[in-house]
Amino acid sequence: MNHSETEIAQLGEFGLIDRLTRDIKFHNASTIKGVGDDAAVMSYHDSEVLISSDMLVEGVHFDLTYMPLKHLGYKAAVVNFSDIYAMNGKPRQITVSLAVSSRFTVEHLEELYSGIRLACEIYGVDLVGGDTTGSKSGLVISITCVGDASKDSIVYRDGARPTDLICVSGDLGAAYMGLQLLEREKVASAGRQDFVPDFAGKEYIVERQLKPEARRDIIDELAKNGIKPTSMMDVSDGLSSELLHICKQSHTGCRVYEDRIPIDYQTAVMAEELNMNLVTAAMNGGEDYELLFTVPLSDHDRIEKLPGIKIIGYITEPDLGCALITRDGESEIPLTAQGWNHFDKK
Amino acid sequence: MNHSETEIAQLGEFGLIDRLTRDIKFHNASTIKGVGDDAAVMSYHDSEVLISSDMLVEGVHFDLTYMPLKHLGYKAAVVNFSDIYAMNGKPRQITVSLAVSSRFTVEHLEELYSGIRLACEIYGVDLVGGDTTGSKSGLVISITCVGDASKDSIVYRDGARPTDLICVSGDLGAAYMGLQLLEREKVASAGRQDFVPDFAGKEYIVERQLKPEARRDIIDELAKNGIKPTSMMDVSDGLSSELLHICKQSHTGCRVYEDRIPIDYQTAVMAEELNMNLVTAAMNGGEDYELLFTVPLSDHDRIEKLPGIKIIGYITEPDLGCALITRDGESEIPLTAQGWNHFDKK
Repeated sequence: MNHSETEIAQLGEFGLIDRLTRDIKFHNASTIKGVGDDAAVMSYHDSEVLISSDMLVEGVHFDLTYMPLKHLGYKAAVVNFSDIYAMNGKPRQITVSLAVSSRFTVEHLEELYSGIRLACEIYGVDLVGGDTTGSKSGLVISITCVGDASKDSIVYRDGARPTDLICVSGDLGAAYMGLQLLEREKVASAGRQDFVPDFAGKEYIVERQLKPEARRDIIDELAKNGIKPTSMMDVSDGLSSELLHICKQSHTGCRVYEDRIPIDYQTAVMAEELNMNLVTAAMNGGEDYELLFTVPLSDHDRIEKLPGIKIIGYITEPDLGCALITRDGESEIPLTAQGWNHFDKK
Repeated sequence: MNHSETEIAQLGEFGLIDRLTRDIKFHNASTIKGVGDDAAVMSYHDSEVLISSDMLVEGVHFDLTYMPLKHLGYKAAVVNFSDIYAMNGKPRQITVSLAVSSRFTVEHLEELYSGIRLACEIYGVDLVGGDTTGSKSGLVISITCVGDASKDSIVYRDGARPTDLICVSGDLGAAYMGLQLLEREKVASAGRQDFVPDFAGKEYIVERQLKPEARRDIIDELAKNGIKPTSMMDVSDGLSSELLHICKQSHTGCRVYEDRIPIDYQTAVMAEELNMNLVTAAMNGGEDYELLFTVPLSDHDRIEKLPGIKIIGYITEPDLGCALITRDGESEIPLTAQGWNHFDKK
């Protein structure tokens, strides 16, 4: 700790909360009362209420060696917004609970909060409450996001039907390859004070890992074009895992084409450099926070015109199972959920 | 781990969530969709929505040496319900986020969840979502509770007015003295396999610490008698601290009478045994989860008839400050917030 930094104990819990949440301005008419009482108050008389919670744990989900606290705050907020967009809703409020060990100063938490507040500013979300407490080791961030949607516009995971087109926004695997790059540079820097990490030409995949965005633009674009997906979720655990969720809940199978999976050039170069399988990275990498959704076949022409959305396959009857059709079109590889397993004893 | 127990890694995150949340029945018409999608869906067209989050961290808020996991789950849920009652609302839904290290088995988490589910059953609350992830050390529980109240019935902290009566439910200091007893027995048991802790005649204070209840009955009783408090909060950090919050937000002062503070016999005996100041325990102990509220003077006769509620003082003009009037009636001790400071480096 530098001399200019402030120990959290100096402020105490209430002083700290005051400092972190002062001057918060609200963006939403649904926010009635924010931080400062036993509970926040919201008003949702004309729409349904959506709620989603995510927890990020130091050493499991993030490494402060290369993750700046401001980016971490931004990411922690955005991944929660992404869950609300994945219901075809709009995020409106968040509560932020933090457990922090004594190695963190007030200034550290201000950095973290500046990222959370920036995300709230950009996405029009109100920070309305939470809890800040001590921890015996490391940092834990638990965010709950409240959003809204009209009853008719909510999209669940269980509405996919055979012949529906499977669509995905953006590109996949970049966040995962960004993580591999950051881990490589971390190992290379070990014990070297003068080390400068080399991210030249790889800025995109690093940003995808450190500062992901939620696809509000896609939700807006679909609405503008009168397209309501039959099922939707966000790609947080990896495309394979998410496709299996949609198909299991919709009681269907699916086929996706390897050569239709959208992959950025930098992702491909990084996989090549690290001698890793590119398709595996794109199918199982996770943390892309793109939207995966299905639309009726009749929407084909309208969806094809939309930039940033790719049709990657179609929904089938359940007995056909879930499979990837290889580039040569000759073989089918069954999809498996290789999503993160934080409980593995490595 | 016994041979009959199951490692979490065997089930994976999705298998674990399925196992912990299966067969959940909903109690509330406002719950539309629970666990299993990107977000839960709720409907609140006729009331305002309340939201509150609390985080409990192993080694900071609880010690598994003497806190059974089922009790911990129960307490973690109930303290969140208490925040919603403190707004004069009804808790309806919770999301539960857990970070667990590999020393916990599936059976451990089932124990924890059995307590959460029991609390939900008793208080009529629906478990609708959450997140379960790994942790590098220990257990972190983050619960967010959603509740509702009509716009006119919500009670904030800022509505207390001079001459209002200050009331508190139940008794104070018991949870704190229960903690002291549990800590004493923990020390006494150190290294002794055959140790049997001695809680005879102290069952009440132990239960107040390990299995607190939220005062739904008081909220119902007030409503039945047509009494709407002018301000209210729950006593989680200690009476002194909460009174200061109400007076600060209401721009008032207050006087409370030492001899009116409700204290149970067991609490007094325990303080005597441990040679601790009883009034300090009652004023600053915390974790009582009783309701502290103010009512207009005109409600005096009605409030006095209600069992389990005690009038302990009155609200003053702000320039008089906040003070405790001692038993002899001769001196005034300024109130100070000695609430928990988890950030202290002990």
